[in-house]
Amino acid sequence: MKALVYQGPGKKALEDRPKPTIAAPTDAIVKIVRTTICGTDLHILKGDVPTCTPGRILGHEGTGVIEEVGAAVTAFRAGDRVIVSCISSCAKCDYCRRGMYSHCVNGGWILGNTTDGTQAEYVRIPFAETSLYRIPAGADEEALVMLSDILPTGFECGVLNGKVQPGATVAIVGAGPIGLAALLTAQFYSPSELIVIDFDDNRLEISSRFGATTTINNRDGKAVEKIMKMTDGRGVDTAIEAVGVPSSFLTCEDIVAPGGVIANIGVHGVKVDLHLERLWDRNIAITTRLVDTVTTPMLLKTVQSHKIDPKRLITHHFKLDNIMDAYATFGEATKTNALKVIISVTEA
Amino acid sequence: MKALVYQGPGKKALEDRPKPTIAAPTDAIVKIVRTTICGTDLHILKGDVPTCTPGRILGHEGTGVIEEVGAAVTAFRAGDRVIVSCISSCAKCDYCRRGMYSHCVNGGWILGNTTDGTQAEYVRIPFAETSLYRIPAGADEEALVMLSDILPTGFECGVLNGKVQPGATVAIVGAGPIGLAALLTAQFYSPSELIVIDFDDNRLEISSRFGATTTINNRDGKAVEKIMKMTDGRGVDTAIEAVGVPSSFLTCEDIVAPGGVIANIGVHGVKVDLHLERLWDRNIAITTRLVDTVTTPMLLKTVQSHKIDPKRLITHHFKLDNIMDAYATFGEATKTNALKVIISVTEA
Repeated sequence: MKALVYQGPGKKALEDRPKPTIAAPTDAIVKIVRTTICGTDLHILKGDVPTCTPGRILGHEGTGVIEEVGAAVTAFRAGDRVIVSCISSCAKCDYCRRGMYSHCVNGGWILGNTTDGTQAEYVRIPFAETSLYRIPAGADEEALVMLSDILPTGFECGVLNGKVQPGATVAIVGAGPIGLAALLTAQFYSPSELIVIDFDDNRLEISSRFGATTTINNRDGKAVEKIMKMTDGRGVDTAIEAVGVPSSFLTCEDIVAPGGVIANIGVHGVKVDLHLERLWDRNIAITTRLVDTVTTPMLLKTVQSHKIDPKRLITHHFKLDNIMDAYATFGEATKTNALKVIISVTEA
Repeated sequence: MKALVYQGPGKKALEDRPKPTIAAPTDAIVKIVRTTICGTDLHILKGDVPTCTPGRILGHEGTGVIEEVGAAVTAFRAGDRVIVSCISSCAKCDYCRRGMYSHCVNGGWILGNTTDGTQAEYVRIPFAETSLYRIPAGADEEALVMLSDILPTGFECGVLNGKVQPGATVAIVGAGPIGLAALLTAQFYSPSELIVIDFDDNRLEISSRFGATTTINNRDGKAVEKIMKMTDGRGVDTAIEAVGVPSSFLTCEDIVAPGGVIANIGVHGVKVDLHLERLWDRNIAITTRLVDTVTTPMLLKTVQSHKIDPKRLITHHFKLDNIMDAYATFGEATKTNALKVIISVTEA
């Protein structure tokens, strides 16, 4: 089969690889219909993710059709159409039992990291019954690729951890795909103000269309000043960090109101300064989270009932044969205006 | 009347000052029976609290008898015995209405800071009805001085923010009075392990008597290693920071388990390094809080029903005339083994 293989920092190629086979009775083999590329794949390609070694098939998102199931799998059978979750959950360990699938001691984020991933014609899914989600009949399957990772990540790490409430003032720092996923799902909870901060006018324009009440281009470095003015010096109830660099986290520290939350979504490569000398008495919370994907069934219902349309995050389409172009387009997002790119693998 | 007055960085004196009078209809004048000294008073004396200016009578803790009430005060009358809360709450502003009295826009921490405090024969208490608590008949009043600040601070900022749960593993970094208050009140929730870390053997010995299941002297810098070994490499569910310096906060970052909480109580003078490069995916929360004193009535019941005995925190007794000695004893706690010092003001 064809598969996009990580070949070490800066290197990747579309290779011919053997089709995966059932290795454990809880496995399923999924024929991938659509997949996509995540910012995390770019991190791997930079050499930032040491657990992912050369030779690994990348990708942890996608939808497909079950080809074969292991002997222990009774919830799915061949022919079922499924969403692949970026998080594999054994459902049995202590972390899974408390709903923290992200830290499953047997799974967690392993797809396209420590086990071969979804940017291929087929993928082996461990713990299939608790790591795949059935696609409802008649669903728009392309939209559901967004349920593998980006929507639950924006929702769980940003909106739920950020305790977005009706009437609240929310700021999202960073209008990339993940910030936009937070923007879409924050609206479930009817905040009064949804402020989006970025340096890219195109992304801010998209944010306005997606429901931002105010957008701020922080090229002039005045976002904090503007937000404090908008909020009578109080700050925001929820500040969602959706970039992963020290300056965006510091913006969140500067704008969070007393009693507010900084919900970090960004993947950080270096430490940040936490100004406890002015935050120790502010009654704030700072949260971090690798997505658990516990909300995937809930999000699926919101898509099916048209509460949100995650297809709005999709800007480009490619075939698996052109996945190198897809990476180039996604990797140069500021030039190409790419958000999420869909890679069609089979017509199945 | 006699009062302990801040005279600028490094300077204080017991002075003769005019007895306070009712300034607003919501005021009460309280004749102080007992007061105490807080670490925050030492911060003021170092010049670290710019809001507190020379000439201020210090102190935000104490018990006493109501001498006189303003025209709007109906809940108390002269002769009532009361606990003074370190936080003054107007009960009307947005923050007070949501229980965040610490950030009351008309009050908050003002006593012994921006208005004259309790280390005196009399004190004027603004918003008396919602900033004083009635002492039950027959109560051990000395114990209740601990309800002005230290018990609610350890409980709200450490135990409640830290989400201490039955069966949980809790570490308290710092066994000063505030860490010990967290240690006493954490036991309300029946954690499995209550680990206390400090550099002072006397304080660790007290921690053992107060209910710590493990004490660790971190002079050898091996506390993190020991805790990770004790918890099979997992870490603790709750790490309570009760010192207020970067190294103790870093210890908390090093020992918090996935899904855990770092509850900061310490008053920090400088920023700390937040290692988001390894914490971004750990599903943790970091909380800060200036005590709201919303739990004072609850804590009063726990004292009255002998669930805890806060008198155990009291190590020394002085008269107001000797308050300079009390400061010397409290300020040299590592030599004197002082925890909380009681200053008797009147016999009333």
